[in-house]
Amino acid sequence: MYTAWTIGDIHGIGPEIILKSYRRFGTGTSRPLVFGSEKALRFYSQKLGIETDIAAFETLADIESASELPEGVLPVISTVEPAGSIQPGVITAEAGRIAMRSIETAARHCLEGKIRGMVTAPIHKEAIALAGSTTIGHTDCLAELCDVPDPIMLFHDPASMLTVALATIHIPYATVPNMIRSMDLGDFLDRLSRSLQTDFGIASPRLALLGLNPHASDGGVMGTEEETVITPGIQQFSEEGIAEGPFPADGFFGARRYRDYDAVVAMYHDQGLLPFKVLAFERGVNVTTGLPIVRTSPDHGTGFDIAGQGKASAESFIEAARLAERIAENRGKRQ
Amino acid sequence: MYTAWTIGDIHGIGPEIILKSYRRFGTGTSRPLVFGSEKALRFYSQKLGIETDIAAFETLADIESASELPEGVLPVISTVEPAGSIQPGVITAEAGRIAMRSIETAARHCLEGKIRGMVTAPIHKEAIALAGSTTIGHTDCLAELCDVPDPIMLFHDPASMLTVALATIHIPYATVPNMIRSMDLGDFLDRLSRSLQTDFGIASPRLALLGLNPHASDGGVMGTEEETVITPGIQQFSEEGIAEGPFPADGFFGARRYRDYDAVVAMYHDQGLLPFKVLAFERGVNVTTGLPIVRTSPDHGTGFDIAGQGKASAESFIEAARLAERIAENRGKRQ
Repeated sequence: MYTAWTIGDIHGIGPEIILKSYRRFGTGTSRPLVFGSEKALRFYSQKLGIETDIAAFETLADIESASELPEGVLPVISTVEPAGSIQPGVITAEAGRIAMRSIETAARHCLEGKIRGMVTAPIHKEAIALAGSTTIGHTDCLAELCDVPDPIMLFHDPASMLTVALATIHIPYATVPNMIRSMDLGDFLDRLSRSLQTDFGIASPRLALLGLNPHASDGGVMGTEEETVITPGIQQFSEEGIAEGPFPADGFFGARRYRDYDAVVAMYHDQGLLPFKVLAFERGVNVTTGLPIVRTSPDHGTGFDIAGQGKASAESFIEAARLAERIAENRGKRQ
Repeated sequence: MYTAWTIGDIHGIGPEIILKSYRRFGTGTSRPLVFGSEKALRFYSQKLGIETDIAAFETLADIESASELPEGVLPVISTVEPAGSIQPGVITAEAGRIAMRSIETAARHCLEGKIRGMVTAPIHKEAIALAGSTTIGHTDCLAELCDVPDPIMLFHDPASMLTVALATIHIPYATVPNMIRSMDLGDFLDRLSRSLQTDFGIASPRLALLGLNPHASDGGVMGTEEETVITPGIQQFSEEGIAEGPFPADGFFGARRYRDYDAVVAMYHDQGLLPFKVLAFERGVNVTTGLPIVRTSPDHGTGFDIAGQGKASAESFIEAARLAERIAENRGKRQ
């Protein structure tokens, strides 16, 4: 069965890291199938000298009805092709349209059970806005397509084994305390636990929660949310030995305490992503969990500043592809 | 000339790391002089088998009037001695009193120009509160003793060469946006620049500022402080090429961009200390800059859980002692 690799913004580093990943990914249990533009792949393949045997198809049925695809051939479902030339580093509505169409088509194939999951190359927020998209990124786009109101954003680093879940995501700094106050932390932990069981194959996940305030408020000296919101919110999970915290965040990471837990819950974006990006460097993987479909992505952007130069690292995409396989296998075992 | 090493809480790891550091510090340009308790040093020296030749004095004048102190002898100014026994891991008012007295005495000696600076072993917040102290830590205690309203908290990692300055310190998460709005960022950068010149010997310091919001608000999509407060607040410094930013914090650290700057300004405690502690691990040094006296300290707490067990690492204290020497030398060159 195939796993979709969506092309992302064709003027960014997406096609390049897909080509590089394909050469190094080897043959996993699942074969990659690019959703996007054949023209973009051929452009970067030629420009950067990454020789790849590409075969384009219109539909998955076409691939399946064709005689067997030889080893070493990268199949592409050409969802939309650009009318003009490929312009690395340039924001265009057309590139935004191609990026969105490839995601939507791959997601539909996943939902219909025709492919195992999807690994998404980065898209450019402004380009998709120019293309008329009202979503701001993969996560909310897929939440909408899958009709799941609250998927969880997870970040996983295969080397340090750090997994971070974000309690709040892309919201202003100042709105975080109210958001945490109004959310159901218990429900969040419940969904997170189930995802770690289903997707990561961890029978009894152990979770660590970070405090919101410096030093987790030092007993109420600096802020109150630990006492009034976080501790009561996780009480049942603490009693059951599933969750611990809230921990002072700086000491927690400084002492590498994340090694004792299956996932760390950060209260806000930078609290999770600052230590994560320092530790994961270029290998970090972003996972959207809690969806009916498997979705991973590299933890970096479109890299417009280095697009078309051959400088992009495929490390993170390769790890994302590996993790997508692992999640699909784990889900398969439970069915 | 001597540099003060203040003993910290005698029931924590302070005396142990002082003894260990003394053995490994070698003879720098400045000789260490412990301010605190002879009894505590002898207790841990014997208990942990860290043989040290200790010579106690009542005043600095006594040391100076004595015949020359032989190489290898660690002098101690016995500021207060505990009446009872030493109890590793126990919070007591007496230990708090000894800790505070040693800081006050060392600071007075610094202000009078009798010693070169001070390296402070950790104190315990509850112990000093029991002892009647109204300050919550070294930084505000020294600010008061030196009559400087706004010293800057810097964290320096000698290995990664990361230096982080905190725009706001020990305040609740929720109060940070208002605090940044009401502070004079330009004045902060000005003081920071001068400290880097004076203390670190950097002729033209280059500063990077982090955004407050995730992705530095992505052009106002998530929060407004970058546009309304930070960018206008640093305009003059940006134009002069001294400061850059505000940068999206996660990408900044992920791409190791701090290597291009002499210091990184974090908007709040965890934004600076999470990446710092991950990178510096056990070598980080805390520097209070902007004071008339030189003060550094190891970037860890009293370690009551491992006090008296011989497990404490002296790495951070040794780096703090090295940095105190360097700062004193740099200040000396400019006089």
